[in-house]
Amino acid sequence: MREAGTLISIPVYSFVGAYLVMIVVGIIKAIVDGPGSVDEANIASHATESITLFLVLHTFSSGCTALTGVEAISNGVGIFKPPETRHARQVMVVMAAVMGLLLFGTIALTQFFGVTAHENETILSALTREIFGRTFPYYVVSLSTLAILVVAANTSFVGFPGVSSLIAQDGYMPRQLTSLGDRLVFSNGIFSLTACVAALIIIFGGDSHALIPLFAVGVFLAFTLSQTGMVVHWMRVRGPHWHLKAVINGLGAVTTAVTLVVVAASKFLDGAWIIMVLIPMVVYFFHKVHEHYQEIRPQLSLEGMPYPPAPVLPPRVVVPVSGMHRGTLRAIQFAQSISSDVTAVYIELDETRTEKFKADFEKWSGHINLVVIPSPYRSILGPLLHFLEAFDREQGDRQPAVLVLPEFIPGSWWQHLLHNQTAWLIKLAVIYQRRRHGGGRIVVDVPFHLRG
Amino acid sequence: MREAGTLISIPVYSFVGAYLVMIVVGIIKAIVDGPGSVDEANIASHATESITLFLVLHTFSSGCTALTGVEAISNGVGIFKPPETRHARQVMVVMAAVMGLLLFGTIALTQFFGVTAHENETILSALTREIFGRTFPYYVVSLSTLAILVVAANTSFVGFPGVSSLIAQDGYMPRQLTSLGDRLVFSNGIFSLTACVAALIIIFGGDSHALIPLFAVGVFLAFTLSQTGMVVHWMRVRGPHWHLKAVINGLGAVTTAVTLVVVAASKFLDGAWIIMVLIPMVVYFFHKVHEHYQEIRPQLSLEGMPYPPAPVLPPRVVVPVSGMHRGTLRAIQFAQSISSDVTAVYIELDETRTEKFKADFEKWSGHINLVVIPSPYRSILGPLLHFLEAFDREQGDRQPAVLVLPEFIPGSWWQHLLHNQTAWLIKLAVIYQRRRHGGGRIVVDVPFHLRG
Repeated sequence: MREAGTLISIPVYSFVGAYLVMIVVGIIKAIVDGPGSVDEANIASHATESITLFLVLHTFSSGCTALTGVEAISNGVGIFKPPETRHARQVMVVMAAVMGLLLFGTIALTQFFGVTAHENETILSALTREIFGRTFPYYVVSLSTLAILVVAANTSFVGFPGVSSLIAQDGYMPRQLTSLGDRLVFSNGIFSLTACVAALIIIFGGDSHALIPLFAVGVFLAFTLSQTGMVVHWMRVRGPHWHLKAVINGLGAVTTAVTLVVVAASKFLDGAWIIMVLIPMVVYFFHKVHEHYQEIRPQLSLEGMPYPPAPVLPPRVVVPVSGMHRGTLRAIQFAQSISSDVTAVYIELDETRTEKFKADFEKWSGHINLVVIPSPYRSILGPLLHFLEAFDREQGDRQPAVLVLPEFIPGSWWQHLLHNQTAWLIKLAVIYQRRRHGGGRIVVDVPFHLRG
Repeated sequence: MREAGTLISIPVYSFVGAYLVMIVVGIIKAIVDGPGSVDEANIASHATESITLFLVLHTFSSGCTALTGVEAISNGVGIFKPPETRHARQVMVVMAAVMGLLLFGTIALTQFFGVTAHENETILSALTREIFGRTFPYYVVSLSTLAILVVAANTSFVGFPGVSSLIAQDGYMPRQLTSLGDRLVFSNGIFSLTACVAALIIIFGGDSHALIPLFAVGVFLAFTLSQTGMVVHWMRVRGPHWHLKAVINGLGAVTTAVTLVVVAASKFLDGAWIIMVLIPMVVYFFHKVHEHYQEIRPQLSLEGMPYPPAPVLPPRVVVPVSGMHRGTLRAIQFAQSISSDVTAVYIELDETRTEKFKADFEKWSGHINLVVIPSPYRSILGPLLHFLEAFDREQGDRQPAVLVLPEFIPGSWWQHLLHNQTAWLIKLAVIYQRRRHGGGRIVVDVPFHLRG
């Protein structure tokens, strides 16, 4: 983590340095050259808007959105040198100051020079161009902006896998999210986040403006909840000055709650509704996941099992055979090696071949039972499943017969198309067939590899 | 087949009847009203083209394309009442006469009335509108045209599955194409053709004009081959008048071969190249399929096997266990019921849990071997496969150990996401792992169904 911190510090320092230099140069230029001319037509519609309460709140929420990110410090307290809290607090103060300086500096300069954003240029790029022209410093500032955005994008990939592994440990998300990959990160969380991000980029055509309403609702909901949580915390702990602290956090909670409502209302049709639909769905999913894990625990637990466990009886074995060849012979022989109660089943699709098959079968595996099932409609799966059920009922040992399946494995992938996928279909049907809870029918795959 | 013939006769008779009536009405109208005025601008570019040999051949090939379909009679000789040949010949003469009448009648009338096709209207619709106006007879003619096109589209679905099942019987196409479905048709051929047709419609955006070059090359190649085949036939059989017959078919072969070359050359860039690339690929595919079926026959044949077959030794069994619960206990018990040589394998991902596991394991299945494999990089598949290979080598009985896999089956599909798919991954890796030709490692699935 400390190494990652060092690596990340390079773009951060470059960005802050480049912008501070730009603001200083901008102020000098402003003093020397005087104000720029604003393209009146471009801002006319906004300028005539009257200052309503809604506009104030809307502006406030936009400003808040611009400042999100500072809170990332608190997620990373653990990576600071001890005393962690003091160092983290110092960094937070410095960051807030730097961010304030950069934000107000750039806003003041854009206003002063009358710079506006265009379809193919951000307002920051336009401002930099105004100050430096298209010279070397312009590219330094632009590249450092790109670098800081990459770092910003990375914070989710640091945070999400950690948070989701915590939720998964509590049993509210798939437990695969708790497993550390061989690079000591929660790889499954990273893969899941990557899939979600890719989906968002595709659905929204890579337009980051379209995604802001989704982001804003989520982030202000989180702020409101954490501020409210702090109020509850102070009310429980009641340390020195707890009233003051509770009031400060309460003010924070109210402010962010108001912002949340404003953003959700004003951006509802722009995409905020998606998050408002999604969050309850996600919570419901967490609940169902937890329910599932709770339900399977007693089903799997060995508590309540008779001890010592009763030995399992030797299995009855059924081998479906489509003809006699090395593959099926091997399956029959394996069946004989694990049980003395073996039944071969031949699904008769073409009567004229049955006699030949019977002769072959008797020659190679004479002393085991053979059941021939006519299938006038040339279906294999149906008659086989039907036979298995009837056979189990008839034997009445409450133990489903074990199915031994001969299976070809062709030499290369395309050759799979040249063989019936019967073994595969039977396997799927039998394994997923719900007989009852607990043990299902055991299926044995006897592969026979073909050259080719 | 006779029933299908009756069903098809309705649209055929409607079409022929409707068009004959239209031509008669058109001729009367032509006599009464006189010729229409041709939109000169529309045909000017064609009119100024000089009559070159190429133009003649091109016109000939377009005309030929218009008349394809008559040959479908010869594919269906078997469905006529006996004497089949005589009835089929009579039908062919009648059809050729009717088709000639319809074609020349409509061409003459379109010329006389100066009717041309437009972007959203076929020339036949324009002609019908010219003769009847948008009245009831117009809709009758249009609907009967639609019906005959549906019948025409159906001929491929009748012909292709039959032809492909014949090729598959000879071992040049996947043998699934020979299997009759429960409606007594070669369903797999129908499904394959449907997939190809859907692909063509999507790729060519449903534009039938774009598909004509593909069709024309294929159909004239087939005509050329069949005419040439008839010449060879007459030269071999040498019946009465065989010289004359050979000359007639030879003339047919030359004419269709010329048309083939003209179409292929003039429509090369319009799509004919696709067929010229595709046909060699298809032939290569046939060849590879045949080669595969030839190669596997001796590999599977029981000839050359020692007789009586040596009995198979009782298997060595390996059970991977991730923890002790009812699912794994069942797998261990099954393994014990089929062999006295059972080894459980525990892949250690987290050292701190090993002692607890060992105690549980000894309590529930004390008397079988347990191998603990540390996996510091938290991989399961790699260490397991590695162990299996080393274990087989060490035992040296030239018989791969049987793998018994405990597997959860959750109650509903989405719950699969909540469990590691380890059993499934192991199965895939082990079954498809090429050890050698012939018998691969046998894998036993011991499913445990969860409620929920």
